[in-house]
Amino acid sequence: MSEPSATQAPPPADKPVADGAGEEGPSKKALKKAEAKAKKEAEKAKRAAERAAAQASQAAAAQTEDLAKDNYGPEKQYPEEREITLKELNEDDVGKTVVLRAWLQNVRPQSAKLLFMELREEGNWSIQAIAAANVEGAPVSRQMVKWIGGVNPESFLVVVGTIAKPIEPVTSCKVSNYELHLTKVYLRAAAPPVLGMTLAASNRAIANFSDEAPAAVEEGVDKLSLAPSGEATAIPAATMLTHLDNIAMHRRAPVAQAIADIRMEVKELFRSYLKAKGFKEFEPPCLIGAASEGGANVFRMPYFEKEAFLAQSPQFYKQYEIAGGRKRVFSIGPVFRAENSNTPRHMTEFTGLDLEMEIRKDYHEVFDVLEGVLLHIFSGIKERCAEQIETVRSVYPSEDFLLPEDGKVLRLTFAEGQKLLREEGPAEFKDVRDDEDMSTAAEKALGRVVREKYHTDFYVLDKFPESARPFYAKEDPTNPEVTNAMDYFLRGQECLSGGQRINEPEELKARMIKKGVDPNSGGLKEYVEVFQSVGVPPHGGGGIGLDRVVAFYLNLPSVHLASFYPRTPKRLLPVSFFAVLGT
Amino acid sequence: MSEPSATQAPPPADKPVADGAGEEGPSKKALKKAEAKAKKEAEKAKRAAERAAAQASQAAAAQTEDLAKDNYGPEKQYPEEREITLKELNEDDVGKTVVLRAWLQNVRPQSAKLLFMELREEGNWSIQAIAAANVEGAPVSRQMVKWIGGVNPESFLVVVGTIAKPIEPVTSCKVSNYELHLTKVYLRAAAPPVLGMTLAASNRAIANFSDEAPAAVEEGVDKLSLAPSGEATAIPAATMLTHLDNIAMHRRAPVAQAIADIRMEVKELFRSYLKAKGFKEFEPPCLIGAASEGGANVFRMPYFEKEAFLAQSPQFYKQYEIAGGRKRVFSIGPVFRAENSNTPRHMTEFTGLDLEMEIRKDYHEVFDVLEGVLLHIFSGIKERCAEQIETVRSVYPSEDFLLPEDGKVLRLTFAEGQKLLREEGPAEFKDVRDDEDMSTAAEKALGRVVREKYHTDFYVLDKFPESARPFYAKEDPTNPEVTNAMDYFLRGQECLSGGQRINEPEELKARMIKKGVDPNSGGLKEYVEVFQSVGVPPHGGGGIGLDRVVAFYLNLPSVHLASFYPRTPKRLLPVSFFAVLGT
Repeated sequence: MSEPSATQAPPPADKPVADGAGEEGPSKKALKKAEAKAKKEAEKAKRAAERAAAQASQAAAAQTEDLAKDNYGPEKQYPEEREITLKELNEDDVGKTVVLRAWLQNVRPQSAKLLFMELREEGNWSIQAIAAANVEGAPVSRQMVKWIGGVNPESFLVVVGTIAKPIEPVTSCKVSNYELHLTKVYLRAAAPPVLGMTLAASNRAIANFSDEAPAAVEEGVDKLSLAPSGEATAIPAATMLTHLDNIAMHRRAPVAQAIADIRMEVKELFRSYLKAKGFKEFEPPCLIGAASEGGANVFRMPYFEKEAFLAQSPQFYKQYEIAGGRKRVFSIGPVFRAENSNTPRHMTEFTGLDLEMEIRKDYHEVFDVLEGVLLHIFSGIKERCAEQIETVRSVYPSEDFLLPEDGKVLRLTFAEGQKLLREEGPAEFKDVRDDEDMSTAAEKALGRVVREKYHTDFYVLDKFPESARPFYAKEDPTNPEVTNAMDYFLRGQECLSGGQRINEPEELKARMIKKGVDPNSGGLKEYVEVFQSVGVPPHGGGGIGLDRVVAFYLNLPSVHLASFYPRTPKRLLPVSFFAVLGT
Repeated sequence: MSEPSATQAPPPADKPVADGAGEEGPSKKALKKAEAKAKKEAEKAKRAAERAAAQASQAAAAQTEDLAKDNYGPEKQYPEEREITLKELNEDDVGKTVVLRAWLQNVRPQSAKLLFMELREEGNWSIQAIAAANVEGAPVSRQMVKWIGGVNPESFLVVVGTIAKPIEPVTSCKVSNYELHLTKVYLRAAAPPVLGMTLAASNRAIANFSDEAPAAVEEGVDKLSLAPSGEATAIPAATMLTHLDNIAMHRRAPVAQAIADIRMEVKELFRSYLKAKGFKEFEPPCLIGAASEGGANVFRMPYFEKEAFLAQSPQFYKQYEIAGGRKRVFSIGPVFRAENSNTPRHMTEFTGLDLEMEIRKDYHEVFDVLEGVLLHIFSGIKERCAEQIETVRSVYPSEDFLLPEDGKVLRLTFAEGQKLLREEGPAEFKDVRDDEDMSTAAEKALGRVVREKYHTDFYVLDKFPESARPFYAKEDPTNPEVTNAMDYFLRGQECLSGGQRINEPEELKARMIKKGVDPNSGGLKEYVEVFQSVGVPPHGGGGIGLDRVVAFYLNLPSVHLASFYPRTPKRLLPVSFFAVLGT
C-alpha cells in the first residue's frame, strides 16, 4: 500500500485473557485465586517474550542503514512544528504537520511496516496515530516502526505528524474525526514493561472498597488486565487497594479525571454563587487550641509541649467572622474526623464548603441561600461538565438526579419526615420517633419514600429535635423541643447540616449547661467571651460536605472516589501503614 | 430649629485622654504603667457614671408619655421599608426612607433633643445618622434620643431613616455625601458597656508582635483608647496579644477587613490566571503517612495507634498529579511547619499557592508562568483593591511596590546575586559564597542593592547551589554544583521557591543517596515507586506563600497580620494556651 489508508478499519485491540468476570457459575475462591495466579504468570511470560522479541528486532534493525534514525528514539531536539492540543483540533488543521505531547495509551503493530497507536492527553482526549514505513516521501523506516512497537504503554511521547481525516470515524478514540500520520516519535519518559494496573482496569468500576490489609485482598485478580483495550467490560475490576497502590494509574483513568473536574467545578460554582450574593471568603484554621465541638472523633497532637487539635469544622471561626463585622462569609477547606470507621462512607479528611450569614428577619433566609447555591451547583455541573458526567456514568451508571420541576426545594419538618417514614416507609421504621436523630438506614429509606412521592432527590428536613443538635443550635422560640436547624439530603443521604446559631451569650451559656457542656471549659470559655465582647447579630449557616455532594450526585459507590487522595484510618495514600510502620 | 440642619458641622468626637503617645520625653516605664492604670480607672468610672446617668434619664423619660415608643428599643417588628447597603447609595436615594442594618460605631449626644451617630457596615463603610426630637412630624421623642444615647458602641442596630444630603461633606465617614435622618432605631445585639479594645485602637498599627505570656505585656495601655474617634493618631496602639484577646474587635477594624479582601483577591487572581493557562485545580491532603520532606519541623500525631504527619507542602502530591496524567495543576491550601520560632515572620499554619507543570523544552517555562501569575496578582490587586490598599497604607504606610517598567522580571543567577552582594552590599556580606544558601539578612541586603540598582522589588535568583536544595531538585545538567531551582523575592524577602524536579527514578534515587536520604525509607520508597510505575514527563513548579505575598507586598510588619487567625507556637487563637493548658 502506498499510504496508511484512512479507509482501513483500526485493527482489534489485544484481547484480554478471558477471566470469568461476569460468569454466574459456582467457582470457588481458592480456585479463582489459583487461576488468577496462573494467568498472571502466563501473561508476564508473554509480555517478557514480546519485549525480548521487540528488543531483538530493534537490535537487528539497528544493523541496517536507517534513513529515519533522527526521527525517533530519545528526544534529540525539540520539534519546531506547531503544538496542538486535541481538544482544539479542527478542520483547519487537516493536512498540517503538528507536534503532540501525549501518553501512549496503546500500540498495535500490524506488520513490519505499519502500526497503529492511541495517544492520550488529559482526561479521555485520545487520537489514533499511524506509523507507516516505506511510504514514498515518508520519513518513517522499518526500524522506526519496530522501535515504536517496543515502547511501553503509559510512556510519555513527543510526536510529530500530519493531521488527516479517516473515512470512518475512529470509534475507540474521543477524537474520532481526525488521525495523526506520524513522522517523528520521541520518548520523553518511559513506562515500565508491565504496569501495576492498566488504564483499562483503572477506568473500570472499582470492585471492592474494603480497606483491609493487603493479605486479606485478592490482590492478583486485577493484575490480569494487562491489555490496554477500550473494551472495558472485558477487563476485570480492580479493588480500591490496588488503585491506591497504583496511584499514578488510578489518577490517569478518564473516570478519575472526570470526577476531579466535576469536584473542582462544584467548588467554583459554590464560590461564584456566594460571591455574587455578597459573601466574603475567609480562611479558618486547621490547627485549633481546644476540641471545640466535643472530644469525640478529634485528632489530638503534641504542639510544642502542649496540645493542639485538628478542626472538625470551621463552625466557631465562621461565627467569629460574623462577630468580627462581616455579614456573609464562606470558606472552603479541609476538615478532619478521627473516626475509626473503615467503610466506603468514611474518611478522616474531607473538604467542607461552609457559609455563615447574618439573619435579617427569619432563619429560613439561610435555607434560601443554601438551596440557591446547591441548585446552582447542580445545574452548573450539568451544563459545564456534561462530558465528564457522561464519562463517569459510563463507568458508574446512575439515574438522573431528580430535582423539583418548579425549582422549589421540598421542605419538610423533621416530624413530617418521621411521619412519612412511619406511614409509608418499610416496616422496620414503623416506630421512628420525632425526638431522636435518624439512623443512616432511616435516612435512605426516607429518601426512597420522598423520591416516590415527590419526585425529587433533593430535600430538607427542618426543625431537628433539640437532642440531635449541638449546643450552639438555636432552639425554636415557639417550641424548645426542636431547633431552628436542618439537614439537606441528596438521594437520601445527608450532605449538609445547618441552621440558626445562638447569638446571645446568656442564651448560649444556658443551652450549654442544658446540654451538659461546661461553658467555662477550655475553648468554650473563649467562644462565649466572643459573644460577650461585642454585639453579634442573629446569624445562621451550614456546612456542605464536598466529597458527599460529588459522590451522592454522581451516585458513586464510595466517597473515596470523590476525593483526590482519600484518607482512611488504615491508609494515608500512597503510603500504607503496612509499608511504613507495619510489622 | 425645625430640622437637624445639614449645614451644622458634625460635633467633635470625644477627645481621647492624652496619653503621651508620640512624645519623646524620658518617661519611665513604671510611671507610664501607673498613669495608664489611673487613666483606665478614671475612664471606667467616667463610663460607669455616664451609663448610670443615661439609665436614670431613660427611667425618667419612661414616666412621661412617649409618642415614639414603638420606634426604638429591642426590635418589635422588622421594618417594611426598603433595605440599602451603603456601598450602593446614590442620588436617587435622597429623600427616600430606608432600612440600614449596621454596627454603631459611635454615638454623640448633643442635647436632650439631638444626637449624632456613626453607623458602620462591613469594611469601613460608614455614614452619619442624626436623631432629632421635637421636630414637627418627626417620629422621634426626647425619650428616644436618650435611649439611643445609652446604646453601647459596637452594638448591632436595625435603623430606619431618610437619606439626606449634608451641605458640607461628613469627613469622618466614608459615605460623606449623604446622611441618615433617623426615624426608628432598634437594637438587635448589644455590645458591653466597655470594650476590650475600641475600633479606633483596633484600626491602629500594632505596637508589638511579641508572642509572650500576658504577664510580660503592658496589657493596660491600649484599654485606654475608649474614644471611638476617627483621629487614629491620638489613640495608643495595642499589642498583637491584645488584638488576639479581642478577636471580634480585631477583625472589625477596617484595616483587618481590607487585608482580608486583598488576601482573598490574591487567591482569586492566582486561580483565574492559572485556569486560563490550562491548569487544573486539585486538592492535596493535609494528613500524610510519612514525613516526606525530612523529619525536622513536621507535626506528628497519633493516628489510630499508628502515626500521621501534617503536610509541609503539597510537593509530592503535585508530582503525583503530573504522574497521574495532568499536564498542569495547581492547589491552594494549608501547609504546616512545626517551627518553634516566636517571631513576626513565623507561623505554624499558612496557605500555600502551589503549581506544577509539564516542561516542554526548558525549565524556564516554569519561570514564565510564575512571573506571569505574580505580575497578574500585583496588577490585579492594584486595580481591584485600590481602596483596600489605601486603607492599609493609612495604618501601615509603605512605599509603592516597584515593578520593572518593561514587564520583564529581573532574573539573576544565585552566583550573580552573591557577587552583587559582595561587591555592592554592606561590608558584612563581603564574603558570601556561591555554594551556600543565603541568610535572611543577606536576602534583605541584596533586596536593597537590587532596588537601588534595578529599580525593582521583584526578582528571581536562579541556579541555587546543590547544597541548598532538597533531593527532588534537578541538578543543572551542564553544572551539577547548582540546581535548576530558584527563589523569587519581594522587597528582599523570599516568597516563592521552585524549580525543575527529577522525573527519572534512577536519577532520583542517585540524588537521594548523594543527599544522604534513604530511598527505601517510609514515604520516600512509595514516592520513588510512582516514578517507576509509569512514564512521568519532565516537570517543575513552585510554591508561593500567600501570607508572605500579602505581607511583603503591603509591607506589613508581620505575616501574622496577613492571616485571618494566625497560628503561633504559643497560641492557637482565640484560645491561648495560658488559658487552656497553662499554669
